[in-house]
Amino acid sequence: MAYQVGVVGAAGYAGAELVRLLLAHPDYELKAITSNADAGVRLADIYPAFTGETDLVFTSHDDPALMALDAVFLAVPHTAAMGMAPSLLAHGVSVFDLSADYRLASAEVYEEWYGVPHASPELLAGRAFGLPELFAKDLADARASLETGEPALVACAGCYPTATSLAAAPALRMGWCREDTIVVVDAVSGVTGAGKGCNARTHYCSADENVEAYGVCKHRHTPEIEQILQAKDRVVFTPHLAPLKRGLLSTVTLRLTQEAAAMDVEEAVEAYRSFYEDAPLVTVLDAGAMPRTASVAGTCRCQIGLAVDPRTGVLVATGAIDNLCKGAAGQAVQCANIVFGLEERRGLPLVAMPV
Amino acid sequence: MAYQVGVVGAAGYAGAELVRLLLAHPDYELKAITSNADAGVRLADIYPAFTGETDLVFTSHDDPALMALDAVFLAVPHTAAMGMAPSLLAHGVSVFDLSADYRLASAEVYEEWYGVPHASPELLAGRAFGLPELFAKDLADARASLETGEPALVACAGCYPTATSLAAAPALRMGWCREDTIVVVDAVSGVTGAGKGCNARTHYCSADENVEAYGVCKHRHTPEIEQILQAKDRVVFTPHLAPLKRGLLSTVTLRLTQEAAAMDVEEAVEAYRSFYEDAPLVTVLDAGAMPRTASVAGTCRCQIGLAVDPRTGVLVATGAIDNLCKGAAGQAVQCANIVFGLEERRGLPLVAMPV
Amino acid sequence: MAYQVGVVGAAGYAGAELVRLLLAHPDYELKAITSNADAGVRLADIYPAFTGETDLVFTSHDDPALMALDAVFLAVPHTAAMGMAPSLLAHGVSVFDLSADYRLASAEVYEEWYGVPHASPELLAGRAFGLPELFAKDLADARASLETGEPALVACAGCYPTATSLAAAPALRMGWCREDTIVVVDAVSGVTGAGKGCNARTHYCSADENVEAYGVCKHRHTPEIEQILQAKDRVVFTPHLAPLKRGLLSTVTLRLTQEAAAMDVEEAVEAYRSFYEDAPLVTVLDAGAMPRTASVAGTCRCQIGLAVDPRTGVLVATGAIDNLCKGAAGQAVQCANIVFGLEERRGLPLVAMPV
Amino acid sequence: MAYQVGVVGAAGYAGAELVRLLLAHPDYELKAITSNADAGVRLADIYPAFTGETDLVFTSHDDPALMALDAVFLAVPHTAAMGMAPSLLAHGVSVFDLSADYRLASAEVYEEWYGVPHASPELLAGRAFGLPELFAKDLADARASLETGEPALVACAGCYPTATSLAAAPALRMGWCREDTIVVVDAVSGVTGAGKGCNARTHYCSADENVEAYGVCKHRHTPEIEQILQAKDRVVFTPHLAPLKRGLLSTVTLRLTQEAAAMDVEEAVEAYRSFYEDAPLVTVLDAGAMPRTASVAGTCRCQIGLAVDPRTGVLVATGAIDNLCKGAAGQAVQCANIVFGLEERRGLPLVAMPV
Repeated sequence: MAYQVGVVGAAGYAGAELVRLLLAHPDYELKAITSNADAGVRLADIYPAFTGETDLVFTSHDDPALMALDAVFLAVPHTAAMGMAPSLLAHGVSVFDLSADYRLASAEVYEEWYGVPHASPELLAGRAFGLPELFAKDLADARASLETGEPALVACAGCYPTATSLAAAPALRMGWCREDTIVVVDAVSGVTGAGKGCNARTHYCSADENVEAYGVCKHRHTPEIEQILQAKDRVVFTPHLAPLKRGLLSTVTLRLTQEAAAMDVEEAVEAYRSFYEDAPLVTVLDAGAMPRTASVAGTCRCQIGLAVDPRTGVLVATGAIDNLCKGAAGQAVQCANIVFGLEERRGLPLVAMPV
Repeated sequence: MAYQVGVVGAAGYAGAELVRLLLAHPDYELKAITSNADAGVRLADIYPAFTGETDLVFTSHDDPALMALDAVFLAVPHTAAMGMAPSLLAHGVSVFDLSADYRLASAEVYEEWYGVPHASPELLAGRAFGLPELFAKDLADARASLETGEPALVACAGCYPTATSLAAAPALRMGWCREDTIVVVDAVSGVTGAGKGCNARTHYCSADENVEAYGVCKHRHTPEIEQILQAKDRVVFTPHLAPLKRGLLSTVTLRLTQEAAAMDVEEAVEAYRSFYEDAPLVTVLDAGAMPRTASVAGTCRCQIGLAVDPRTGVLVATGAIDNLCKGAAGQAVQCANIVFGLEERRGLPLVAMPV
Repeated sequence: MAYQVGVVGAAGYAGAELVRLLLAHPDYELKAITSNADAGVRLADIYPAFTGETDLVFTSHDDPALMALDAVFLAVPHTAAMGMAPSLLAHGVSVFDLSADYRLASAEVYEEWYGVPHASPELLAGRAFGLPELFAKDLADARASLETGEPALVACAGCYPTATSLAAAPALRMGWCREDTIVVVDAVSGVTGAGKGCNARTHYCSADENVEAYGVCKHRHTPEIEQILQAKDRVVFTPHLAPLKRGLLSTVTLRLTQEAAAMDVEEAVEAYRSFYEDAPLVTVLDAGAMPRTASVAGTCRCQIGLAVDPRTGVLVATGAIDNLCKGAAGQAVQCANIVFGLEERRGLPLVAMPV
Repeated sequence: MAYQVGVVGAAGYAGAELVRLLLAHPDYELKAITSNADAGVRLADIYPAFTGETDLVFTSHDDPALMALDAVFLAVPHTAAMGMAPSLLAHGVSVFDLSADYRLASAEVYEEWYGVPHASPELLAGRAFGLPELFAKDLADARASLETGEPALVACAGCYPTATSLAAAPALRMGWCREDTIVVVDAVSGVTGAGKGCNARTHYCSADENVEAYGVCKHRHTPEIEQILQAKDRVVFTPHLAPLKRGLLSTVTLRLTQEAAAMDVEEAVEAYRSFYEDAPLVTVLDAGAMPRTASVAGTCRCQIGLAVDPRTGVLVATGAIDNLCKGAAGQAVQCANIVFGLEERRGLPLVAMPV
């Protein structure tokens, strides 16, 4: 029996990716896709990739069908999500929120970085953080609650925090880093990360043949990374835009303790592999190899590469994901799989086009 | 029970795409992948997209395991294919040949365009032409023969001929065109169409930000298109290279009879849809819409758009495919599905990434 | 002594390219750049390529300084241009119009294709058509008139008509083509051709990794091509969009007379070279070579390649230009050079980046 | 009177860019271009951008004409350069070396990173380091020596060291940084940086739609950056490849002293501007702005953007250049300009295409 699900904000990039994944998933039945701007329009008219495959039509966000579903994926901007989640939960609908609204545990930090007060801070304590490889307990708890009839609220991690934390967390959690280390995060994202909105930055003629940094020291994923890594005021995050559609590479530089700096990279790889032995979607590459974003494009995988530099005493860890899949829609489905008791990879794309 | 299959030439682009498709297919079990240059190497070391998914290792083309399979896909260059097919067939192995070796019905025409004599002209009469939407009978015959124990030899159509013929054949077969019409084919391919070989044309810095025509009036797909369309010495084929990885768009211009030129485009669309009513992988777009290669990338679909110009009395038909999938590997699997009695779309990717 | 010039509509892509060319030109002094939307803003804040080079600030289109200049380049949309040209001319200012407003000799044809009545049809007879290689007399006349004190009105040819006509006109003018030939034009443009407006087609994530046809049989450059080639109702024009910024390749297929079809391609090349012997910006490539758009990017050159197919009796001619330079701003400056009595290449970029 | 110059290794990417610059330069006369692999071939046949502009033909590296020139630019790989420079110098020919052979002051460090002994270590002490904005005295000394008849040996800085050092050096030289700071350099380069050699990394289908790190902690530009910044064993350098042709962005993260961390970014910008007040090719952007590589493509400029993060106490400085121009050929010409007593920008491209 399939779970009945809906996507709110299905006309955006993450929303459309959710539709792609859910239509292909054997255990979910996609009953509603909503978009206020495109209500009444056929999905295939906005995204011709669906032509010939589905006749789904957008309804508006207030579609009453949503309240009767098993789960709703919220792919709307922050602030919009927290306007919808409480009501869905009250109707017993589990919520997988792809926005930032429930990611930060502290409503104060949310207000500080997002500039608006949180509308439902009372939900923060009970929400699960949706980054399964690092917050397995959160999702297990949500699963347990659901079995007692309590709908889940899962705050799916952002794209940069996902790639960054998967690359950096093992080193930090295993105590390899100097206490005073700054976590230097330089990340590169494809243009889908900037969203469907068309502007001077996302115009083809601006983005093509160009690399630039943006939001330096101000990007809102910074506090999320600091929360995940428990590195308050120690993360320097510089995101960059590069000319590709999908793909996100995060390069993290960490200063190691003298002991850790003496490791071979092979030892580091082994330790990371042990750390992720229960994480089937994370692959730690052999020593010497570094991940390519193209090799995970369209999939829910994360590939990680490591280098240890005894000369300077640092670890460089790079993590590659597809920002729309493992960094957004795929991760939300992975979380739903876990919460609904399915194998976490169930129904997810796992192999990128080889070329 | 799965059919046991192998891919010869699996290290090339079409071969790697075959591996992607076959690994995901519920009815085929991939038992051997061969590459003389990479024998002994792990597939994932050449194509990191497979990292974490499979430990397959290349063997060489003379791997004896091939002779015990149900089917072998030949993804080697022309001349190499006709060196292998006879022996496979003699062992009862069905052959799906992605090269040009068995496409042309005439060994003389083959020699004229390919510059070498045909090594097994006796097989030409009995081979099936692998373009299911236009040569259904060929594949039905192959299916019938297989049921009597006769292995199939399927000459899968080339990438340009596939998109071009799917766009042009209905108009020609339905008698819309002036008898003396030249079939003007201008097509654009992504760089995967130029193959894995690295040269002055495929170097990133040559192909990026550039469009150029190549092989003008000399491309070897010309006689194949003429054969499919029964338009001997009437096809002008100008292929172009554009800066994208996958995707092929063929734009065909045909002069219409006076009667046909009086059609609305809506009538043309309706007629094409009737023509393709049994072809689930071909979608004829609504009047006014033209296909985007990105909307079929990674899939085995073909999308077709039509325009009728009463002013000049022509039909412009454009067909979009993924050159590696519907134009090569996907079509081969589609043919195999038919020959083995499966639904033709079985196991094939049908929805492109929406963005 | 430099001529004083201005650019109206300098915030658009063609306008900004004009600014690039005029700032580098030794004989023009750029006195005004206008943009109603960006009046008061620094050029370098819109186009950071100018940072460190100029402090020019946009004024609005009604900047009175314009009326005192030697020449104004109009890089505004059609209809806007014909709202400004008469007044400039009345003040003795020569006008180089990059819009479509004065290209078509017939106000009726203009209205038919552009859907609006022409506002100053009385100017059409006296305007020069700005495609120097094919309309040298027009520009010579404008030069002569200017010497008598009459300001020039030059209607610069569009991007597609420029590449297409330079490739096709010699064959047609030299009588190589069958009288009933359809002129089949398939052209590919980079995304700058779609302009600065940001929309579903120009978003990076739409345009990247995609090729599509658009405006099939309806594009407004069709009557312009027919006018230049004197081929009323015989041009089939199918423009395509490909993922590059700059560059336009037009591929023209023409049916030859029996006599012409017997030519070697070397003869055709020789004849084209004679045709263009006084055109220093057009290069006819050696037999067998086809032009690459990247090799003319950023320059005012056009490269042409030819193929003759005796089998089908056609000529395939391809012309490559930079749509913003030879196809717009560069051609306007080339025209101005001629009208002001300078060598036509004066101050223009002539060598693309080699890679 | 023009200086007579030659380019050795002119068939490579940096060499071809030198040819582009030197052909356009009013004070240099390009007398010889050499390539052993392409001797006897026309430049325009390898780089069609030169078609119609020059009939230059490659000679081989042992072309005796070289010894009679004023200057030779060496655009050959390391080890090859040090095989040629001594002889040229002995003939009184000034040498501008784009390879790594004379960059490192220490032959031991050279041997450690390049794995071969230095062939002419005696020349290291007297060579000028070719990064004019940071080593003005070196070039002034070379100029002075030349006036006494001593030919110059200029070791032009590498692409990554140029962008990185221009971004980082002011902060380090002005004493803003904690003594123990690690200089974290994450840089992204276009594919021309990987050279003309065609391989699995530079094939279009590998590089397109992909970002990856390479040479992590092992790239040979590391000791060069450390030498420039006087930061022995403190530079962590992670280069990345992104899908663009030209462009290099270096993002440097530095820990500040408590005092420096209290600066406004506006103060930092002012200080950088003072630092570079005599450097016309370096532009420090306004506070809040970050450079785009596209805005310097094809030019010899460097644009720098700064962010100060009081939260973590770091400075993030990004520097954008064109890797082939300011990062290679342009810088070499800039150095030559200085050594020959010309204004340093003389003849160099200064404005990128606006779009």
